[in-house]
Amino acid sequence: MSPPAKDRLGEFGRIERFFRPLAAQFPGALGLTDDAALIAVPPGQELVVTTDAVVSGIHFLPTDSPGDIARKALRVNLSDLAAKGARPMAYLLTLALGRDVDDAWVDAFAQALSHDQARFGIALAGGDSVSTEGPIWVSVTALGLVEAGRMVRRGGARPGDIVLVTGTIGDAALGLAVATGRLAPPEEDVHHLLARYATPEPRCALAAAIANYAHGALDVSDGLMADFSHLCQASRVDGVIEIDRIPLSEPARRVLARDPTRLASILGGGDDYEILFTAPPEAEVAIDAAAKAAGIPVTRIGHMMRGDGRTIFVDASGSTIEIAVPGWTHS
Amino acid sequence: MSPPAKDRLGEFGRIERFFRPLAAQFPGALGLTDDAALIAVPPGQELVVTTDAVVSGIHFLPTDSPGDIARKALRVNLSDLAAKGARPMAYLLTLALGRDVDDAWVDAFAQALSHDQARFGIALAGGDSVSTEGPIWVSVTALGLVEAGRMVRRGGARPGDIVLVTGTIGDAALGLAVATGRLAPPEEDVHHLLARYATPEPRCALAAAIANYAHGALDVSDGLMADFSHLCQASRVDGVIEIDRIPLSEPARRVLARDPTRLASILGGGDDYEILFTAPPEAEVAIDAAAKAAGIPVTRIGHMMRGDGRTIFVDASGSTIEIAVPGWTHS
Repeated sequence: MSPPAKDRLGEFGRIERFFRPLAAQFPGALGLTDDAALIAVPPGQELVVTTDAVVSGIHFLPTDSPGDIARKALRVNLSDLAAKGARPMAYLLTLALGRDVDDAWVDAFAQALSHDQARFGIALAGGDSVSTEGPIWVSVTALGLVEAGRMVRRGGARPGDIVLVTGTIGDAALGLAVATGRLAPPEEDVHHLLARYATPEPRCALAAAIANYAHGALDVSDGLMADFSHLCQASRVDGVIEIDRIPLSEPARRVLARDPTRLASILGGGDDYEILFTAPPEAEVAIDAAAKAAGIPVTRIGHMMRGDGRTIFVDASGSTIEIAVPGWTHS
Repeated sequence: MSPPAKDRLGEFGRIERFFRPLAAQFPGALGLTDDAALIAVPPGQELVVTTDAVVSGIHFLPTDSPGDIARKALRVNLSDLAAKGARPMAYLLTLALGRDVDDAWVDAFAQALSHDQARFGIALAGGDSVSTEGPIWVSVTALGLVEAGRMVRRGGARPGDIVLVTGTIGDAALGLAVATGRLAPPEEDVHHLLARYATPEPRCALAAAIANYAHGALDVSDGLMADFSHLCQASRVDGVIEIDRIPLSEPARRVLARDPTRLASILGGGDDYEILFTAPPEAEVAIDAAAKAAGIPVTRIGHMMRGDGRTIFVDASGSTIEIAVPGWTHS
């Protein structure tokens, strides 16, 4: 092996310089100097734990910046915590880089994490660092806290519930199509769509309201249709979504106006990282107030009814419609 | 994309068939049907959390069997828990495979995990599955429990402590040398050395004794010399190891007898996954009894004394010796 170049600190040096500061606010991280982190869970609370990895060429583009990669790796996990009604606590990070990645890259990666840590109230608790000859990847395990018994399950939806979703749907899928040359929207819409693919906005500010009011919830990562189906099946309740109520951004509306067949990728494309949830109708006013306070739009798009887990999509006239979306299979 | 071949169930199918059974005994895994796992920590206890990834070509050989890869991925994490005095509770698993890996491979991987789960008392709580064009990798986050305040730190060693180590040192490094054609031991020793590299033996059965008696501890993964140095530096105490007391297997002794320069790789090579710990001298009898009960050899190899974190190696005559071991740098 050749000696490291001047812009490569080596694993220990990088941990000390770039990652230890990310752990400074969390005593259980033990300064990243031990073999493990120590997590104390306050009495009456439970830990919600999720893990998601992102791989170059699959979950992000090889041309994405280190900051984009860092944000996506952390935020897809924060999104899961938010959908379960959990507030972020700490995360562990495993980073696999090629030997040619220099310290400036790692610095930018850590800076982005630092910014997101402050924004979402989470700290680095531990991790691992490996090298790879293959594509860069990042694996995050995120820990959040809920009041004991209050984690919101996928399978908790009940007949009579209303169905709600945060933000807008479809932008990320359209953004990926733009990034890969399969869609050329008006110039004014390019940035919005690309950004929505590159940088998820986890809805952590709504987690407390989800914990308080939601019966069933998950985050929309596989596409609205697929994830609504997961929710209905896990809950063993039928669900109805009124297509015309699904919140779309102005750029997505313009894409759809020019090409109605794009509806399939809007509803089926995934990577939205919005929260899809159900709640009793009487909670709608309180949810709207919480959404307004959090600055996160929430839209009622359907309802649940007795059944065995089917999903039904209806148009403005109430007629059932079939949307040909090839099932989004994980690869 | 071409349709999946008959021997590829797809992500959801594989989770259901191969991984859901691994989560059946752990209610907080929620049957692997939700976005996150739910971890309840009993009152008076704390959670010890560690994450380590293994990458093909770096932490295991591309020719290793799926069972070997599964065992190594889980056990390197169990080893960290044991060294901290924590008993295993649950783990999250992220598996990155090429598209050409068939279901038989995944089945063998999961079978090995199932066997280890029963042996070490741990269950699958969640995970992620991704595909990669690069080398196979597996990332594990393991959760263990300790009585509150009883996690054993790297930095807890005190002057006057004795230094102890489990098992034998150096076999794994010699095994890697055998596997990569850099060492040709007598035929009778090949299997032992290869197996010690391929399959770590985490010392979980000694975790309770570590929690009860150890002042400072870590697992030996970077090599005895490097890890002892980590312990001394973190504790800000000097440490002395008597080289001749370091426990070696018969195969390692035979290698060393034929080529004394192999001492460097025995002490510096890493991957031992033994526990190196310090304890007050008066605990030695109790530790020996616990070691006997657990069926895990424990050997006293040195002592700690007032100082600022230096490591000193002495021979049988008490003379300080220098061992030229190139520092094991993580890559």
